[in-house]
Amino acid sequence: MPPADHDTPREIEALIDLMARLPGLGPRSARRAVLVLLKKRGALMAPLAQAMAQVALNARDCVICGNIGTADRCAICTDDRRATGEICVVEDVADLWAMERAGAFKGRYHVLGGTLSALDGIGPDELRIPALAARISAEGVTEVILALNATVDGQTTAHYIADSLSSAGVTLTSLAQGVPIGGELDYLDDGTIGAALRARKRF
Amino acid sequence: MPPADHDTPREIEALIDLMARLPGLGPRSARRAVLVLLKKRGALMAPLAQAMAQVALNARDCVICGNIGTADRCAICTDDRRATGEICVVEDVADLWAMERAGAFKGRYHVLGGTLSALDGIGPDELRIPALAARISAEGVTEVILALNATVDGQTTAHYIADSLSSAGVTLTSLAQGVPIGGELDYLDDGTIGAALRARKRF
Repeated sequence: MPPADHDTPREIEALIDLMARLPGLGPRSARRAVLVLLKKRGALMAPLAQAMAQVALNARDCVICGNIGTADRCAICTDDRRATGEICVVEDVADLWAMERAGAFKGRYHVLGGTLSALDGIGPDELRIPALAARISAEGVTEVILALNATVDGQTTAHYIADSLSSAGVTLTSLAQGVPIGGELDYLDDGTIGAALRARKRF
Repeated sequence: MPPADHDTPREIEALIDLMARLPGLGPRSARRAVLVLLKKRGALMAPLAQAMAQVALNARDCVICGNIGTADRCAICTDDRRATGEICVVEDVADLWAMERAGAFKGRYHVLGGTLSALDGIGPDELRIPALAARISAEGVTEVILALNATVDGQTTAHYIADSLSSAGVTLTSLAQGVPIGGELDYLDDGTIGAALRARKRF
């Protein structure tokens, strides 16, 4: 719990409450983070506040792909060097960043903004699925890579998209499943080992 | 590592780098926190940036006790209901907050700002020890409670302060050591069990 007594200034309490809403920080670690900020007011707190205000002001969703950038069209969608014929469909901006860190894909992205979920009332129109279909004809896309998470919701969504694009005349692919680099069989789940065995390759 | 590619806007990368300097957040969790902030730009990011900027601007160290507040003299030092005869000496503002949460102490505090450490070159003048001696005579203090952490550095500092105040005519006390509330003997270290046994009380 944040300090509730009247002797902690209200502004500091409010800051702790807001910090505690970040993922990875609970009320206790938020207080610890704020104490560090208070000790480094000039070196860390002021620059962090300014950086945050600036991003809050400038960040916007790319109107084409749903990536987050600082303009109406993100840096990937406006990069002429990136192939326009391939679209990689991801659930979330976090997944787009992960793909970019891997550096293996040189086409464009399409961020759905979640997965289909009957339980949460999220249907195709809540995601950016209609916009995907529109892009395929508008941009002359030949391949759609379904890079959704290997979860039940992710795969349900991938199947839905594959069905809805079946007559769009594009090649649909998905990421390979198998043993991760550095993975040890003893620590892998049965599903992954089964998938890796079924997709085995000649050595 | 934060995303190093050119496709993440520089402002967002800078924000991730700053967030990663908070305790409890590494580069990975800082990125995750920034993604949540980006999704809640209006509801969380903007208020957090504003709260942080306000605290960075207004926070200052109390000139009397070293507590952090929003005025030159903190809320505790200016509270007439708090006894002036007792000073509780703590290492850090975090410790002062912990004491206040316990709500058991109704006197004033003195925040040292650390512990003596020959290794790190921290002597009595780097801490607020001279100011403590000055307060004792100025405020008519009768008891100094040494609430320093039960670590080697904390106890070394406590002994140094006790020595330097031996002729000041004040009662010096320290927090009791023993079994914490809810503590199980099986999980306690030998030193704590020994201290609790030596300080045993009639049942």
